[in-house]
Amino acid sequence: MSVMQQLSSPISSSSSAFLSHSNFNSRSKNVWVPAKRIGICKCVAVPQEAQTAYTTKVSRNANMAKLQAGYLFPEIARRRAAHLLKYPDAQLISLGIGDTTEPIPEVITSAMAKRAHELSTLEGYSGYGDEQGEKALRAAICSTFYSGLTVDQDDIFVSDGAKCDISRLQVLFGANVTMAVQDPSYPAYVDSSVIMGQTGQFQKDVQKFQRIEYMKCTPENGFFPDLSSVPRTDIIFFCSPNNPTGAAATREQLTQLVKFAKHNGSIIVYDSAYAMYTSKDNPHSIYEIPGAKEVAIETSSFSKYAGFTGVRLGWTVVPKILLFSDGFPVAKDFNRIVCTSFNGASNIAQAGGLACLSPEGLKAMDDVVGFYKENTNIIMETFDSLGFKVYGGNAPYVWVHFPGRNSWDVFSEILEKTHVVTTPGSGFGPAGDGFIRVSAFGHRKNVLEACKRFKQLYK
Amino acid sequence: MSVMQQLSSPISSSSSAFLSHSNFNSRSKNVWVPAKRIGICKCVAVPQEAQTAYTTKVSRNANMAKLQAGYLFPEIARRRAAHLLKYPDAQLISLGIGDTTEPIPEVITSAMAKRAHELSTLEGYSGYGDEQGEKALRAAICSTFYSGLTVDQDDIFVSDGAKCDISRLQVLFGANVTMAVQDPSYPAYVDSSVIMGQTGQFQKDVQKFQRIEYMKCTPENGFFPDLSSVPRTDIIFFCSPNNPTGAAATREQLTQLVKFAKHNGSIIVYDSAYAMYTSKDNPHSIYEIPGAKEVAIETSSFSKYAGFTGVRLGWTVVPKILLFSDGFPVAKDFNRIVCTSFNGASNIAQAGGLACLSPEGLKAMDDVVGFYKENTNIIMETFDSLGFKVYGGNAPYVWVHFPGRNSWDVFSEILEKTHVVTTPGSGFGPAGDGFIRVSAFGHRKNVLEACKRFKQLYK
Repeated sequence: MSVMQQLSSPISSSSSAFLSHSNFNSRSKNVWVPAKRIGICKCVAVPQEAQTAYTTKVSRNANMAKLQAGYLFPEIARRRAAHLLKYPDAQLISLGIGDTTEPIPEVITSAMAKRAHELSTLEGYSGYGDEQGEKALRAAICSTFYSGLTVDQDDIFVSDGAKCDISRLQVLFGANVTMAVQDPSYPAYVDSSVIMGQTGQFQKDVQKFQRIEYMKCTPENGFFPDLSSVPRTDIIFFCSPNNPTGAAATREQLTQLVKFAKHNGSIIVYDSAYAMYTSKDNPHSIYEIPGAKEVAIETSSFSKYAGFTGVRLGWTVVPKILLFSDGFPVAKDFNRIVCTSFNGASNIAQAGGLACLSPEGLKAMDDVVGFYKENTNIIMETFDSLGFKVYGGNAPYVWVHFPGRNSWDVFSEILEKTHVVTTPGSGFGPAGDGFIRVSAFGHRKNVLEACKRFKQLYK
Repeated sequence: MSVMQQLSSPISSSSSAFLSHSNFNSRSKNVWVPAKRIGICKCVAVPQEAQTAYTTKVSRNANMAKLQAGYLFPEIARRRAAHLLKYPDAQLISLGIGDTTEPIPEVITSAMAKRAHELSTLEGYSGYGDEQGEKALRAAICSTFYSGLTVDQDDIFVSDGAKCDISRLQVLFGANVTMAVQDPSYPAYVDSSVIMGQTGQFQKDVQKFQRIEYMKCTPENGFFPDLSSVPRTDIIFFCSPNNPTGAAATREQLTQLVKFAKHNGSIIVYDSAYAMYTSKDNPHSIYEIPGAKEVAIETSSFSKYAGFTGVRLGWTVVPKILLFSDGFPVAKDFNRIVCTSFNGASNIAQAGGLACLSPEGLKAMDDVVGFYKENTNIIMETFDSLGFKVYGGNAPYVWVHFPGRNSWDVFSEILEKTHVVTTPGSGFGPAGDGFIRVSAFGHRKNVLEACKRFKQLYK
């Protein structure tokens, strides 16, 4: 493919906002026009076709080239934008990306505003904080989420979100590990693995990357993988309650998983970002399982508990007794990554996190979670009443089965006919094909309106 | 080294706050005590010496093992803490890490507080923003810092800081690039390169990593490398005004650098985080140099302009016409990294950034920068009056020459005898040995007091 073809070809790895056709078409503006101050003027814009672009001699990272299409959610944003171009007057409802919609409780925003104001005072100003997070917040996370689980507060690394920590963990592991992932699952696990060079090429026929173990999670196995058929890998990404299926692993299942990891000497990266959405019976942390601290890292986030998707705050737990094969503590290397590649979460966001974990904050978060769970129930009942098999209930996502159909076709059908954005199940892995994920993040009136439209479409 | 030795040996890659001896000694608390809710109780704490630790079968990332000692600044924090243990009553003054000390101007914190409050309203709430940053902020950065330089606003990726972007850029480049770095320079360039596997082992005799080109910048060459003796590399990290030397490259020097990169087909990663500290004559952006957009990425930050070290906000410019050897735009891959490994800077911090770029905000930032520059002058004059050769002036750092002496010895001497924390020059690269960096970030009274003590010590 020539340079010019590449510049004008459909963008395969982009978000909607950036590098859309219209942006690239405006590229001719980029022809060098010297700044006036330099006092040279030799340049006349030439038609793009005739221009010979300068290329560096730096080879593109081959791992980047392996990535398929766009990162899922920017691709959905692109299709959403295209739909709005086609139907400018459509009353579009987004139950796609899983973006929180309800205001952050005032007890939390007040704490952030207060911290912001304090930063303009001599007494209240603070610069660089500990890369690992403020001590008070680490302590509060520890006592709130890991009470009685012998997690130490200095096992907790505060971050700008679980997604960012997943990539930092991949940098920590490096290129030479093998990994397993639930199929379907949150696409950042696979994509970050590809970027780090842990995988081979994408195999179009099976829609899988070489060297990744896709652990099938379907209604047939109750959305828990048949571990007896999963080969050993170094790393096992496991999200519970799962995004996108909404399935929460039971204590027995997680005990199996920890046993499996221990037998294989694997490290579990346990994503508990939706733990507050599950029932009291299901474990809320992998560390509730005996022995898990020797084999598991846990990552979580305030995003879906307190509406912090834009504020950015999460954490990762790396127990000190989790050791590499040579006995070196994983936490030491993760600490080095955090100190070298990160400079701590925003101090204002951290003040918000601390407020989240106050008694009023916890109550407020419970209310937020409860609200979205009601949405989950409304959507589940809607599809159930239409005769669909519906899964989930333990997460702010509903997983609807359209047996035998292509997910993107269903996505398009729903978008075209109801102006509701969902997420195609195949975007989460090949076992997600035939499903769509409906996010329960939405204002109540929008969720009800969307359900009304679903009923009209599928009655 | 046995597991137990590793667990109790001095921590080589840690920050002071985490994994200190006292933390690790408390590790015995980590012996598994089942949570009450599980209803099993079989565990009796055994002496640490007798315990056989479980190790996973995951190999430690060999690149992590190449890293030397701690990341510089955590190591200094560790020594500072040790000093305070020894002298609990010392009036310690920190001119070490380069951490801002002056309050954030109220026009900026008010905007952040306002945004925080708005997040608790239906109208003002926002969740996930564009990973690349809010459009208004990208536009404001573009028009403030790149006016007349034909940088497009969608070339700008807003981030949580330049340090974080440096690591994301390294992930983008991957393991197979070669890199050059100013010697001395900000340690995150080298350390992130090591982590990504771009280097060989550390060579103790020359204090350099294999496969990195250390471009010597000393008083002899006016702190600009002799490019005729620098071999070609894929990537060239270049910071101007430089941290730690405070040297700002002239237009002629940067023109040479761009020509050098273009001749070699290299990509420059230009760190302009201190650009506002330099005189009007020196370029404030690499894009002031004709042709730079074809070979250069620029990264910068609000940290040192507005005291945002704890708030976290920066940006990186990747021009669309910067191309890999196969013609693929670097910006497309960087966009993919940003979308996969990052979720945008905190929306509250972005509101602060926008306020920074308002007319009042710009004036306020100018005042902050002006204040620290006065500190720079005070420190420079002090060491000058004591007969030292002093360099800098274009950055909030003063680079003091102690010919023939070991930097860490000088660091220790100053700490021991004046209770002032500085930074040893060798922490920035082998050519930094014999120097110390004195940060100009400090309250005026502390800077004056530190200078008084310097005068007593070196009179």
